[in-house]
Amino acid sequence: MLFSLSLLDNVYDMKKCITFIYCCFGAIYVHAQQSDSLFVRNIFNELMTHSTSYDNLRYICKEIGPRLSGSANAQKAVETTVRMLKQAGADTVYLQPCMVPHWVRGEKEKGTLQLKSGKSVPLHLCALGNAIGTPAKGIDASVVEVKSFEALDQLGASKIKGKIVFFNIPMNPTHLETFDAYGESGIARWNGPSQAAKYGAIGAVVRSLASNPDDYPHTGSTGYNDSFPKIPAIAISTNDANYLSSQLQQGNVSSVWFKTSCSMLPDEPSFNVIGEIKGSIQPAEIITIGGHLDSWDLAEGAHDDGAGVVQSIEVLRTFKALRYQPKRTIRIVLFMNEENGGRGGDAYLAEAKTKKEKHVFAIESDAGGFTPRGFSNMMKPAAFEKLMSWKNIFQTYGIDDLHIKNSGSDIESLSEVGAELAGLRTDSQRYFDVHHAATDTFESVSKRELELGAFSMAAIAYLVSEYGL
Amino acid sequence: MLFSLSLLDNVYDMKKCITFIYCCFGAIYVHAQQSDSLFVRNIFNELMTHSTSYDNLRYICKEIGPRLSGSANAQKAVETTVRMLKQAGADTVYLQPCMVPHWVRGEKEKGTLQLKSGKSVPLHLCALGNAIGTPAKGIDASVVEVKSFEALDQLGASKIKGKIVFFNIPMNPTHLETFDAYGESGIARWNGPSQAAKYGAIGAVVRSLASNPDDYPHTGSTGYNDSFPKIPAIAISTNDANYLSSQLQQGNVSSVWFKTSCSMLPDEPSFNVIGEIKGSIQPAEIITIGGHLDSWDLAEGAHDDGAGVVQSIEVLRTFKALRYQPKRTIRIVLFMNEENGGRGGDAYLAEAKTKKEKHVFAIESDAGGFTPRGFSNMMKPAAFEKLMSWKNIFQTYGIDDLHIKNSGSDIESLSEVGAELAGLRTDSQRYFDVHHAATDTFESVSKRELELGAFSMAAIAYLVSEYGL
Repeated sequence: MLFSLSLLDNVYDMKKCITFIYCCFGAIYVHAQQSDSLFVRNIFNELMTHSTSYDNLRYICKEIGPRLSGSANAQKAVETTVRMLKQAGADTVYLQPCMVPHWVRGEKEKGTLQLKSGKSVPLHLCALGNAIGTPAKGIDASVVEVKSFEALDQLGASKIKGKIVFFNIPMNPTHLETFDAYGESGIARWNGPSQAAKYGAIGAVVRSLASNPDDYPHTGSTGYNDSFPKIPAIAISTNDANYLSSQLQQGNVSSVWFKTSCSMLPDEPSFNVIGEIKGSIQPAEIITIGGHLDSWDLAEGAHDDGAGVVQSIEVLRTFKALRYQPKRTIRIVLFMNEENGGRGGDAYLAEAKTKKEKHVFAIESDAGGFTPRGFSNMMKPAAFEKLMSWKNIFQTYGIDDLHIKNSGSDIESLSEVGAELAGLRTDSQRYFDVHHAATDTFESVSKRELELGAFSMAAIAYLVSEYGL
Repeated sequence: MLFSLSLLDNVYDMKKCITFIYCCFGAIYVHAQQSDSLFVRNIFNELMTHSTSYDNLRYICKEIGPRLSGSANAQKAVETTVRMLKQAGADTVYLQPCMVPHWVRGEKEKGTLQLKSGKSVPLHLCALGNAIGTPAKGIDASVVEVKSFEALDQLGASKIKGKIVFFNIPMNPTHLETFDAYGESGIARWNGPSQAAKYGAIGAVVRSLASNPDDYPHTGSTGYNDSFPKIPAIAISTNDANYLSSQLQQGNVSSVWFKTSCSMLPDEPSFNVIGEIKGSIQPAEIITIGGHLDSWDLAEGAHDDGAGVVQSIEVLRTFKALRYQPKRTIRIVLFMNEENGGRGGDAYLAEAKTKKEKHVFAIESDAGGFTPRGFSNMMKPAAFEKLMSWKNIFQTYGIDDLHIKNSGSDIESLSEVGAELAGLRTDSQRYFDVHHAATDTFESVSKRELELGAFSMAAIAYLVSEYGL
């Protein structure tokens, strides 16, 4: 009985104790949340008032321009962003070497649709990235249109051999998120040419991956399959795709001719550009914030991915401007060769493994400099729970969409070295008006939208730096 | 005891009965929600696939262009939208007369900043809407800069009389919503000139209400006060405002000269354009869906408010395309004269009162054709509760921001005839890059963003038509 009473007393005391601890932790938690909210507001105010990201983007777009891996412009982008990271106040800035593919477009492509009436209609076209060129006189053949890979398989070699296959798979406008439509239709660009080659096609024409009807061809890598011959492959504008399709349906088409002189040269040495602020408490724990330096050769690569580059640099500048000393190491990584090889990402992962680095978190901005909506994530449950505990802070800025989605192709393998992954999630409605096309210019970027994206990256970097994941 | 038992039995029966009723209603509710979700998805698919809103907007911007009240273009907009509403399938289309102010800009404005060095710097400027013009030779005076109305009052007549007052109140970049910044800084344009006149100023120069530094003057109405003299008033670009301010701080400014030849002519007859689908069950209950036909004279009025016009027409077209017969009357109202008088809104309210119409709901799209985020609302609690019951439907499309905010200036007085009010809430980041400036062109509108706004209007119109508020 005494024992029992004593036990009850103990239990009672324990309860009081737990209540007291809860109160303390509760108070600390509330206090922490309040001070975090305040600091995130400081980040917001600093960034929306003094950001250099828009000016940096102007420089990258207008003074450098297109910067495909292996090109002189890509090297200029390396040198320029080293300077920008130093100006932003990085503790250290260094280059991480990688060998990159060096694909060149050669002379401007040409192509026409030959109608049975004798009329020749010029096409708005471009070679697909990494594709081989045509013979000097081009290729000229009749055209088979397919709207799916099933349709291609049904046609088979008897209907395809010696012809040009036209993949006409429009982006589905009834997906709210344009990336979902890109995911569905994008297989035509990536797999189409090799699958057509499997049945003996001599060339492939792919409908541009654009959300809306326009006259711009949208390039992007195609992926050859070593089991089948490599055939020349082009994208045509969505307007041309609609026209070609209607002419085919009416039986008016004689042939399509196109000529490309693109080719893959030997690999070139290149670099990722890295700038750091060393962590004050856990310097060995690395937070990677990144975008990619290379861009397609048809435009300025403003949204893809000049935006991600300048936003990442801006995270560092803002922390330095606020004299914020992160607990964990903040590492800004500007990856080379996202577009047609992923070699920068590979090199970064390889070095992380070699050096046995401890990676806590990585985020990439590669969905355009549009209004941010939140963070797509590929996280383990415990990390996701931590992320969710900051939802009310994100909500204040309309960046609380935390759905599970891909992070970014440069960082997605960093889970192998322990990193929890996220991607900056943006309003995707305008992305496929400009993606990989001549329309991806500085003028298509909104200053405030760009800055809000940089802020989002800084906010999550701050929280992870303070608390881990 | 028996009684008690009986009571218990009754209570038990009652509970069963209530449970049964709940289950029935629950099932009906769940079924209704599901069928509503499905129908809203039909609206989405129809609209994102077959919308004519983008083509209609192109026509209004490129074939008509600026359409300030009282102008020949405003009349063309009336005739064109009558045709569009008929093509969309309206049961009836009619005009509602109203007299509108007829302000004209006259010759292109000119102005320069005269420095003490003798240098003369041209200014990017425009007269403010509804302002009087200068004498033929312009006005030339020294300049006093103020950053607030408090500062103006402190200077008083002794420092202001005979001078030009420069209102330099930048839009605060640390507001997430640019409309909040517009609300704060906008008083300079509306009240500044009359307040400066109170202290004897002979002219007013207002910093353009633009979010970012650029070279475009942004016009918009100024509101004279009958107690003080009317003085000429202009807006200068944000870049010029920054330059003028820095030159003033350095003591380099001799004077500012500007010449405007704008004037207010006698009122002109004009019209609201109205198209209806008559309600099948409660035809007397009116749902008003609108935007405004008039636009400032400096650009094409694409976002402000060509977007709202074509989105409203699109609601009707979509319902007709889906053969949806609304229970309540859907009335598309394209208001005249929102920009510099509000006479269309006044006429609509007056007729609603005269005819003792029963207005259930009104929504205006006048926040640009940007990605929709939800519906600002000015609703009574019961109506707001009904709105909230549809939140999960809205959430699917990212349009579930239902904060209390202004609805739209053409409809805000319709609460006097019983209407619950809402405004289409959009992503506001780019709005003040184009608002009332030469940059408000068709090219600045995204097809998908425009269509998503039209969808949002159609979705809420459908739900209110089915269930009231």
